[in-house]
Amino acid sequence: MRKVAVIMGSDSDLPVLKPCMDQLRKLEIPFEAHVYSAHRTPDAAAAFAAAARANGFGVLIAAAGKAAHLAGALAARTTLPVIGIPVKGSALDGLDALLSTVQMPSGMPVATVAIDGSANAALLAAQILAVEDEALAGRLQTLRDEQTAAVLRKDAALTLD
Amino acid sequence: MRKVAVIMGSDSDLPVLKPCMDQLRKLEIPFEAHVYSAHRTPDAAAAFAAAARANGFGVLIAAAGKAAHLAGALAARTTLPVIGIPVKGSALDGLDALLSTVQMPSGMPVATVAIDGSANAALLAAQILAVEDEALAGRLQTLRDEQTAAVLRKDAALTLD
Amino acid sequence: MRKVAVIMGSDSDLPVLKPCMDQLRKLEIPFEAHVYSAHRTPDAAAAFAAAARANGFGVLIAAAGKAAHLAGALAARTTLPVIGIPVKGSALDGLDALLSTVQMPSGMPVATVAIDGSANAALLAAQILAVEDEALAGRLQTLRDEQTAAVLRKDAALTLD
Amino acid sequence: MRKVAVIMGSDSDLPVLKPCMDQLRKLEIPFEAHVYSAHRTPDAAAAFAAAARANGFGVLIAAAGKAAHLAGALAARTTLPVIGIPVKGSALDGLDALLSTVQMPSGMPVATVAIDGSANAALLAAQILAVEDEALAGRLQTLRDEQTAAVLRKDAALTLD
Amino acid sequence: MRKVAVIMGSDSDLPVLKPCMDQLRKLEIPFEAHVYSAHRTPDAAAAFAAAARANGFGVLIAAAGKAAHLAGALAARTTLPVIGIPVKGSALDGLDALLSTVQMPSGMPVATVAIDGSANAALLAAQILAVEDEALAGRLQTLRDEQTAAVLRKDAALTLD
Amino acid sequence: MRKVAVIMGSDSDLPVLKPCMDQLRKLEIPFEAHVYSAHRTPDAAAAFAAAARANGFGVLIAAAGKAAHLAGALAARTTLPVIGIPVKGSALDGLDALLSTVQMPSGMPVATVAIDGSANAALLAAQILAVEDEALAGRLQTLRDEQTAAVLRKDAALTLD
Amino acid sequence: MRKVAVIMGSDSDLPVLKPCMDQLRKLEIPFEAHVYSAHRTPDAAAAFAAAARANGFGVLIAAAGKAAHLAGALAARTTLPVIGIPVKGSALDGLDALLSTVQMPSGMPVATVAIDGSANAALLAAQILAVEDEALAGRLQTLRDEQTAAVLRKDAALTLD
Amino acid sequence: MRKVAVIMGSDSDLPVLKPCMDQLRKLEIPFEAHVYSAHRTPDAAAAFAAAARANGFGVLIAAAGKAAHLAGALAARTTLPVIGIPVKGSALDGLDALLSTVQMPSGMPVATVAIDGSANAALLAAQILAVEDEALAGRLQTLRDEQTAAVLRKDAALTLD
Repeated sequence: MRKVAVIMGSDSDLPVLKPCMDQLRKLEIPFEAHVYSAHRTPDAAAAFAAAARANGFGVLIAAAGKAAHLAGALAARTTLPVIGIPVKGSALDGLDALLSTVQMPSGMPVATVAIDGSANAALLAAQILAVEDEALAGRLQTLRDEQTAAVLRKDAALTLD
Repeated sequence: MRKVAVIMGSDSDLPVLKPCMDQLRKLEIPFEAHVYSAHRTPDAAAAFAAAARANGFGVLIAAAGKAAHLAGALAARTTLPVIGIPVKGSALDGLDALLSTVQMPSGMPVATVAIDGSANAALLAAQILAVEDEALAGRLQTLRDEQTAAVLRKDAALTLD
Repeated sequence: MRKVAVIMGSDSDLPVLKPCMDQLRKLEIPFEAHVYSAHRTPDAAAAFAAAARANGFGVLIAAAGKAAHLAGALAARTTLPVIGIPVKGSALDGLDALLSTVQMPSGMPVATVAIDGSANAALLAAQILAVEDEALAGRLQTLRDEQTAAVLRKDAALTLD
Repeated sequence: MRKVAVIMGSDSDLPVLKPCMDQLRKLEIPFEAHVYSAHRTPDAAAAFAAAARANGFGVLIAAAGKAAHLAGALAARTTLPVIGIPVKGSALDGLDALLSTVQMPSGMPVATVAIDGSANAALLAAQILAVEDEALAGRLQTLRDEQTAAVLRKDAALTLD
Repeated sequence: MRKVAVIMGSDSDLPVLKPCMDQLRKLEIPFEAHVYSAHRTPDAAAAFAAAARANGFGVLIAAAGKAAHLAGALAARTTLPVIGIPVKGSALDGLDALLSTVQMPSGMPVATVAIDGSANAALLAAQILAVEDEALAGRLQTLRDEQTAAVLRKDAALTLD
Repeated sequence: MRKVAVIMGSDSDLPVLKPCMDQLRKLEIPFEAHVYSAHRTPDAAAAFAAAARANGFGVLIAAAGKAAHLAGALAARTTLPVIGIPVKGSALDGLDALLSTVQMPSGMPVATVAIDGSANAALLAAQILAVEDEALAGRLQTLRDEQTAAVLRKDAALTLD
Repeated sequence: MRKVAVIMGSDSDLPVLKPCMDQLRKLEIPFEAHVYSAHRTPDAAAAFAAAARANGFGVLIAAAGKAAHLAGALAARTTLPVIGIPVKGSALDGLDALLSTVQMPSGMPVATVAIDGSANAALLAAQILAVEDEALAGRLQTLRDEQTAAVLRKDAALTLD
Repeated sequence: MRKVAVIMGSDSDLPVLKPCMDQLRKLEIPFEAHVYSAHRTPDAAAAFAAAARANGFGVLIAAAGKAAHLAGALAARTTLPVIGIPVKGSALDGLDALLSTVQMPSGMPVATVAIDGSANAALLAAQILAVEDEALAGRLQTLRDEQTAAVLRKDAALTLD
């Protein structure tokens, strides 16, 4: 299976990405995590993205806050799908990161998930890899069924006081 | 190749989706277009999404405005990746559609592109299908190279008065 | 008297809904509470809404956060009035939930109250049921009179230091 | 059947309310329209709302822009349900009217619809009156079925060029 | 000297108004404080405002949060200047209260100060009363001079480590 | 009677101020209009404000757009009340001007009216001058009564088609 | 004198940059204009910025819209000051471009001017170059004096009708 | 080397400015810090700015919150570059300060950095002084290289659990 790259602009984003990596592990999807900054290590970020397809990656996930350019900078160097996670940690509570990530100009998409939506980034990466992977699609469906069952159990168990 | 589904909440969204369909054609990606509303035809939308993988689709693209629930409603019924295009046509210029599309709860991602970012939705769908399709990846790279060349030509031709 | 349904997208919304249920009890309005998610249990939510009128419900109240589709998803399946409570719990403090709930497309209204406005949702449900129920209208008027008296007592008791 | 009151803060709001009144007529719901301002005619507005239940009204619809206090001012004088339509006509495109209408304090709900969501206000009023009126509920269901059929017809007729 | 009325929509707003009342006391301006709600006690609020000029008031100050209608409701009943203080206490941090207070329709101004800008409301009331009161104008100028001196002292004392 | 100063940051704001000056004329309030910029003519603006009380002014009205500092800059130089009109003409439709005008720091109030609320600025100035001027208060009350009568006439004349 | 680089993300931004280039010419500041995209030509943009100091540039001006990464991408490759102009052309009227430009992470500043504030970008570049260039500082002061005189002339010429 | 002036509107902003002053010290750039308020000490602020070039300053940095006029007020009195730091401390989390600082009218730029972006203000000042100062440019490049190395070290050291 192709690997997922989980890239954070700063190692302070690591807690935000924990649900993402937990979800990838649960779905048995191989991944690598890296700290690359669009601004502090532009060459390393560009080199990683440019080589990602050749290096066996299938999807890139990028998390960054404030004027969040990381996902877009990676997207500019690869034709692999890039998923952007806007990180909340700013005075504007992530609205800046959301707009910086999602409002990409024509020609260069970033697949944006919710602010701090790190688990969903993993699921989206899994969905992408599962387009042609029936086993993974099956694990995703199982996870979905478990979600449904969990809500129905909570509904059945709902006690009001 | 798996097909792309281009779904609009209203046929008034058709002009917004034209760049999306043009881009898909240019990349030789087969697609079907449909009008399904999350609210007016919830059963038809749900049935389409639930059967999409079996019917040969690989990616769903959904465009909707205002309280844009269409992409999320489709995502709830399939494990295929769903791309959401927030449509601008509202008093709030698409900010409502953007937040309704991107701020999905954990467990149910929608890959969101920019407001009215219809061409990028097509490119993202192509990138997803190209993860395992080298020929399509090649066409994407060619398109990317043409974009680069076009900007450089414009730079060379820039005349100031 | 017709019942009110109080539906939450997640059992983590239960504290937000406590003032709603307290208010319903105080007004002696029968209600049921459920956990149904527009995305995780779309079939259960749809089935509940479709059968609500036949099952003796008069009003549905739905609370959800982020890209809050629950009220709209229920509204799509019933002609009973649906009241939406946008829940604050997100990076954007409920602005996303507010717009996702209130900006419904033409043809499918959701009666939206304030962010976390759970007591008001109960009062609105009571007002709806009281259109044809003079006893309930009387209890609402009593409550209103008590509110007025409480403010006037506070005004009379105001002491400044 | 109880009547609906359609109240506008200024006669310049009449075009915004036309879809509301058309929808009420189509559903055969009796209504009266009035121009009352929360600020310019506070007594007339208050008197109308206070007498509305006795005068045979079942629902009040209020449309106002900017710091839109009309719906709240009416709600303060009646226990009938009050539907608020935030009107777009301001520098802030109706965001001010939306927040002024929906963010009501505890104890005094306003059932808020989308900015300029005038047809939905009529439908919501109809849904409220239809809780105990099977014939009206039937007309609402017919309208809903027509909406569904119209979308499905558009889907079938979709032609791409 | 004419009195200032300090009116709050709820006694929970009392802490927000403390700087206002402290400032009025410091400037030796007589004032009364009241709890009146635009929605819970509309008659009391209207009666107070209508009689304010005759009862010796010169300026009304109104503090309210969320869909803050109090200042506007008072303004509708008097030709005295009404100062509005938007109160922060809401999911939207007072943006709703600000827009509900300041965006008044033509014909009915509210002199709006900053969110929670309670001391400034007192100063503005004093400035209004001081237009024709040289002694009060003198006390305002003295306060202003003290402010200036305090900043210059802080500048002189600034120590960096 | 003390005069009103109507100050605009640019003569391009003159159309925005026309309703203000018309209203002042209608109320027989003497005024002067000036073009002073907080940034381009800071000395002239400061000198005007500093001398305004001595020169017979009672209220200053300042209109400016974008980062609208004019009202605050005048307020810093006088203890007369300063009314700020945020002007819409910017990419952000006057939200920037509103926040720059209303969010003044403690100690220096600006009485802010709605975006482009120029007629209300005149009315607020009149209300301020009328605190001690019964004749002007009478003219204001007459204007208010005319407003009320106009709305009631429109209500009576309302014809629906 | 060191040159200014005026870089636009797309040649469609040329009209926005005309006031910038006019202002540079008026101040006799040498400049070059280029079309480089952070996403379509990342290598060309990076190479230009990396060589800018050696090639005689003193300041870089970058204009871009939507998720405006251009200024930040240039800033990552040079220690010369980079001025960012957020361009309005998007559904969100440039708020996205403003936040994407100004909210840069620590370590990598972009000197941001107003949305579409292209003339100010030129003036800021001139101010930077004039820190050590008395002749240019003199031309800036002359321009400033002309601005002041123009406002005062407009004030003197103000005629009201 | 020309000095940098670090000016705060209130000494309560001192903690926000600490990273700015630390960064200036690290880069061996001489600076002075002052407390001047655009509103409480307009004369002192104006006098400081007007004399700044003659007194050996090269760049002014101004930090202020809410309706942040300080940077603009300084900019109006000097042709030196002025850097504005919007300070977060307000109900609106610094959005008001950001817009008040960055949206300057044509003719009077303020080089705006991120909300609370105090370290970046120091770096931008250093970049401005380094246009003609090779030694300082060298120190900036060294700092940049250290940043890059630090990120790469963190990437190498990344351990996931």
